[in-house]
Amino acid sequence: MPHSVAGPEIERLIQLLARLPGLGPRSARRAALHLIKRREQLLGPLTEAIRVAHERIVVCSECGNVDTADPCTICRDERRDASIIVVVEDVSDLWALERAGALTARYHVLGGVLSPLDGVRPEHLNLDKLVARAARPEVREVILALNATVDGQTTAHYITELLAHMPVRVTRLAHGVPVGGELDYLDEGTLAAAIRQRTTF
Amino acid sequence: MPHSVAGPEIERLIQLLARLPGLGPRSARRAALHLIKRREQLLGPLTEAIRVAHERIVVCSECGNVDTADPCTICRDERRDASIIVVVEDVSDLWALERAGALTARYHVLGGVLSPLDGVRPEHLNLDKLVARAARPEVREVILALNATVDGQTTAHYITELLAHMPVRVTRLAHGVPVGGELDYLDEGTLAAAIRQRTTF
Repeated sequence: MPHSVAGPEIERLIQLLARLPGLGPRSARRAALHLIKRREQLLGPLTEAIRVAHERIVVCSECGNVDTADPCTICRDERRDASIIVVVEDVSDLWALERAGALTARYHVLGGVLSPLDGVRPEHLNLDKLVARAARPEVREVILALNATVDGQTTAHYITELLAHMPVRVTRLAHGVPVGGELDYLDEGTLAAAIRQRTTF
Repeated sequence: MPHSVAGPEIERLIQLLARLPGLGPRSARRAALHLIKRREQLLGPLTEAIRVAHERIVVCSECGNVDTADPCTICRDERRDASIIVVVEDVSDLWALERAGALTARYHVLGGVLSPLDGVRPEHLNLDKLVARAARPEVREVILALNATVDGQTTAHYITELLAHMPVRVTRLAHGVPVGGELDYLDEGTLAAAIRQRTTF
């Protein structure tokens, strides 16, 4: 959109919105227009919500989660099982596991996975802190809840080596058929894993 | 995501982002996280851009466009052909036509199309102002650049009736094969229109 049409203020808003994941140039234009048209209901509250988030949200120095408190709500929660650390790539994975509600352990957010192609090396990840936490006497298990991608699995192997000398048990998520998934649409690797790790019905 | 995990501030940000077109619950979570993680590069500038937009952007009282000035940049541009008014449903359509650069006329943004199902009636659209503008002596043509949907075409017919007693020429966009489009993927209506409106090669 040329500057002369809508002015640099709208253009700037579109450019910034287009940098959000999931918004391309076209949907960023639609989002900007939507924000402008619903100024009272949406633009004001969103400005305020972003300002509050900008001011108050911090990264937990213990686990790498984002929250308004440091240590975060999860790390401070005494009811959670402190003997298990669930290692995730990103905060969105932590949120996904919390939505699943499958366990009430502590987490450790790596902030990425090892990726030689993208230049992500061990020193770029939140690994030193993980080793320090895993060395604590109350920790008995580290669950590697990393994506089943090449980089995710490379990182899982790296962490397993890193913790090999410690008395903690290192586990990973099961592979298998997604609940509700149709076999015909699954790749051979998943199917083979699902058969290998079959359980008694 | 339960409140206890990330706090009400992040939850509020996610809820507001999810109201933008193109962002579902999942991508709103990713967008919120992206904003929080890139606080300095993105959260601050976006807060500022939204604040500036909130303060400065107004709806043009002449044509319904959004801009930081009223009348808008287009309505004030003396180099534009004041004899043609291009009627569009929404500002995004105005932007699309400006990107195409096919004409330098004035616009008129309806703010929607007639839709009995959605309860959109003539009084909800920016029609009175259109009639007033079309009555001005310098206006010779009104181009109905409305979507080729049922509601868009209903609205086009309604406007044609509305302007029937005036000495302006009412035209609409041509139907036909999109540039780069493959015939095999086009519907019969488009193909029939493309043949009816064929031009000499």
